[in-house]
Amino acid sequence: MKRSLIALGLLVAMPLAGQQSSEPIDLGVLNQIKWQAFNNSQVMEHLFYLSDVYGPRVNGSPNHRAAAEWIVKRLESYGLKNVHLEPWGPFGNSWQYRKFYGALVEPNYAPLIGFPLAWTPGTNGPVTGEAILAPIHSQADFAKYKGKLKGKVVLIADPKVVAMHTEAEAHRLTDEEIAARTRVPDPSRMGGFGGAPARGPAPVPVDRNAALKLRNDTSKFLSDEGALVAVNYGTNGDGGTVFATWGGSQDPNDPVPPPMVAITPEHYNRVVRLLQHGMTPKLTFDIETTTYKDNQMGFNVVGEIPGTSKSDEVVMLGGHLDSWQGGTGATDNGTGSSVAIEAIRILTSLHKPMARTVRIALWGGEEEGLLGSKFYVQQHFAPRNTMKLTPEYAKLDAYYNDDSGSGRFRGISANGNLLTKEIFEQWIAPLKDLEITTVIGATAPPTREPGGTDSTSFSWIGLNGYGFMQDPLEYGTRTHHSNMDLYDRVQQGDVMQGAAVEAWFVYNTATRAEMLPRNPTPEPATK
Amino acid sequence: MKRSLIALGLLVAMPLAGQQSSEPIDLGVLNQIKWQAFNNSQVMEHLFYLSDVYGPRVNGSPNHRAAAEWIVKRLESYGLKNVHLEPWGPFGNSWQYRKFYGALVEPNYAPLIGFPLAWTPGTNGPVTGEAILAPIHSQADFAKYKGKLKGKVVLIADPKVVAMHTEAEAHRLTDEEIAARTRVPDPSRMGGFGGAPARGPAPVPVDRNAALKLRNDTSKFLSDEGALVAVNYGTNGDGGTVFATWGGSQDPNDPVPPPMVAITPEHYNRVVRLLQHGMTPKLTFDIETTTYKDNQMGFNVVGEIPGTSKSDEVVMLGGHLDSWQGGTGATDNGTGSSVAIEAIRILTSLHKPMARTVRIALWGGEEEGLLGSKFYVQQHFAPRNTMKLTPEYAKLDAYYNDDSGSGRFRGISANGNLLTKEIFEQWIAPLKDLEITTVIGATAPPTREPGGTDSTSFSWIGLNGYGFMQDPLEYGTRTHHSNMDLYDRVQQGDVMQGAAVEAWFVYNTATRAEMLPRNPTPEPATK
Repeated sequence: MKRSLIALGLLVAMPLAGQQSSEPIDLGVLNQIKWQAFNNSQVMEHLFYLSDVYGPRVNGSPNHRAAAEWIVKRLESYGLKNVHLEPWGPFGNSWQYRKFYGALVEPNYAPLIGFPLAWTPGTNGPVTGEAILAPIHSQADFAKYKGKLKGKVVLIADPKVVAMHTEAEAHRLTDEEIAARTRVPDPSRMGGFGGAPARGPAPVPVDRNAALKLRNDTSKFLSDEGALVAVNYGTNGDGGTVFATWGGSQDPNDPVPPPMVAITPEHYNRVVRLLQHGMTPKLTFDIETTTYKDNQMGFNVVGEIPGTSKSDEVVMLGGHLDSWQGGTGATDNGTGSSVAIEAIRILTSLHKPMARTVRIALWGGEEEGLLGSKFYVQQHFAPRNTMKLTPEYAKLDAYYNDDSGSGRFRGISANGNLLTKEIFEQWIAPLKDLEITTVIGATAPPTREPGGTDSTSFSWIGLNGYGFMQDPLEYGTRTHHSNMDLYDRVQQGDVMQGAAVEAWFVYNTATRAEMLPRNPTPEPATK
Repeated sequence: MKRSLIALGLLVAMPLAGQQSSEPIDLGVLNQIKWQAFNNSQVMEHLFYLSDVYGPRVNGSPNHRAAAEWIVKRLESYGLKNVHLEPWGPFGNSWQYRKFYGALVEPNYAPLIGFPLAWTPGTNGPVTGEAILAPIHSQADFAKYKGKLKGKVVLIADPKVVAMHTEAEAHRLTDEEIAARTRVPDPSRMGGFGGAPARGPAPVPVDRNAALKLRNDTSKFLSDEGALVAVNYGTNGDGGTVFATWGGSQDPNDPVPPPMVAITPEHYNRVVRLLQHGMTPKLTFDIETTTYKDNQMGFNVVGEIPGTSKSDEVVMLGGHLDSWQGGTGATDNGTGSSVAIEAIRILTSLHKPMARTVRIALWGGEEEGLLGSKFYVQQHFAPRNTMKLTPEYAKLDAYYNDDSGSGRFRGISANGNLLTKEIFEQWIAPLKDLEITTVIGATAPPTREPGGTDSTSFSWIGLNGYGFMQDPLEYGTRTHHSNMDLYDRVQQGDVMQGAAVEAWFVYNTATRAEMLPRNPTPEPATK
């Protein structure tokens, strides 16, 4: 079965009326890719190591580094060359936690579901304190609480309205939702993680600098006031699923807050209600964290399948490897990393020459602002503020990114380029049984500022950074930055499909007669 | 506003063609009830104390007792008489936990979401052991694991298939679902907690005796083998919501297992996968539990609004007060208890004489098999096996029970009695804005064996035990016996409605010219 399928090796040209190019479609290669992706899959094995064994992978932490070293070995086992951890930076301190215990101990006992916020210290053994409600919305709130927080467990958020779950948490894109992405953009339809349709009004844009300043000012205030532990309920979730990320800062020059944790809102609200009834709830925490100051440099994991006739031209694929700390970084972005590793495995298993070099890059520092990929494109291709192009700039064919969770690929963005759209449409034509149907073309222009994920670091400087449109599944509702970002919330069939599609796109790009079309090179950024 | 509403005092007879009775409907009283229930509600305050302050309330535990004593004071503050804890029993040991800490510590750190199983011991300080997978389905499995469990953290369940949540967790009954309850019973439509429609095949009936024997044999086996801690993932749930109840037994003569815990299946499965890859995951637990052997008797909380002209005739209302340990017993059955307390408050606030005595009973031991209500009906009315009737038997008019979670009342069962159905239909006719629409009549005969909840302890001996049909909301999917059975998962509007409806039914029953019709008194039970 296996041999006969591989032996087919059909090469089909698919002419499409009125289009500018007719792309060669090698159905034999596609068949091999699908066979490897679905009948010989290793993608969940990759994911097992990245999540169950080495997760969570906060940037620069020992876990992140161990996962990276495991990937180096795995890529080398597939015959990749020049596999290495490529430094970038400086990033700052890394951080990992080794114990979280929290409990309500008075007026009654309950263990608390939660975890420490990144870059916050531990408690140096078990500590117990009375709770106080002191929601901090801005620096103006500090005056209200001055002198009142010493030795207290400080609840720094307003109580949360917990609603019943009247909609299914998991969602696959409907045909209508997919079609909507191809239309002229309508802000009322935007938003939502992982391509989820927006529910409710569009989110208020966050001023990242203002958010970081409030964080630092809050850290200093809480620390100066002698708060014992600061508590919130993260950004989303309930029912034991807690979404949360940083509390402190990786920057060694930033102030260090007291220990900070996020807990499930049902537990948070209980403490608030006890306070509102004039009671004096007490909480115990026992938290161990380590802030690693010895290695301030970040790193990306990079490796190559050298090209044959055009080895100086490069097709890249990847996603970020770093994660937040609540779960094991399974869907953000163990899946994208595992899919890229699996696509590489599939490509090497084909034993088919590819003219261009295929390079996998698994970024660090994505969660702190696409740092790994931004440094990478600056070092290799061009700084955005000068746009002084390196020789490599002309040779970077494309970068394919996967970072929207576990969901299968339902489409791909052509970065607003009609020529690319027509090529991609021919590539996905034979993928109907994989349920990827749509190329988003000229009506969705590429973002001119990096944001969201690493492909935008490429498109920001005019390179071809492509992102796949994925089924959101439970990404926004359950796993994205939560303690439930775990292996069991990954859908095996979906990541198998992702690896097949990604391998197919990379193969076609690496063997195509010409490099893919580009958008105009942007002017230097003025800000 | 308040005075003018109360002053209305309309008394309307609602003749219905072709029916045997025409029930007087006092719209003035109904108006007062609704005003109290919605504009002066205390139901969430009751619930706050029962759940946030005194929960969880495992039967006979200090928490259960403290909640009961709080209720006694509250009922006395409403002017109730003869308020007391009425003993029944013996029940056995009571139990409470005071610390739960669990973590995966090798190959990597992760705090575990879970809690100890009831009547299992603590660890006597932190303990760490290697995991071993040893699923126990029956006593036949013991031989496989003999000699292999000493000092180990034993995973006693098969790994769980964790699925995406493709259906909404919260559900309100549709008109069609409600209508289906009124039709001739169809086993394919039965089942589901809290009146939820069955999804999938009907559940396999559990042989309770066999389950208890397997529990006891497993306890002895694990203890004899020197297992350090036994772990499963409970009966339902994921995403940090863990459904679990007992591990040991309240019977002081039953064997004591090692410490036992339930954890979220994502965490459980992670350990299993590590084992399946030949790794040696280690887990740490630090669990403190107390088994109380000093008071083996159970108790119900009972109190009365004495009747006027027919004070020897009794209308009862209530629900069980005891709970499981994972959450705070908010929806099982803090809501039913709070609704009954609130109905009592509303009734006392009317300052309207009621001919019959109104008696609230908040049962203990429901979770262990309706023990409190079964003992109560045996002591007060008749032992089922002899059916030797006490004088009280003839004087018990009705018992109204609320024990299906937070959902509003959408209907009531007339216990298969057509005469009752016609009375209840007149009582609910003016409640259209409360969305209770349906009386389930002669096509749904009363259960002849007690089960499910405490109203069946009454109907089992031929007394009028009535249960309300409630919207399931998140009862089966989120809260019933889980660590998320918490205050925030209660829907305030729904429990307000429940209190209004329950007060209205109790008022009408207590002031009606005649007692409600009964079904034929059953013969003594032969088993």
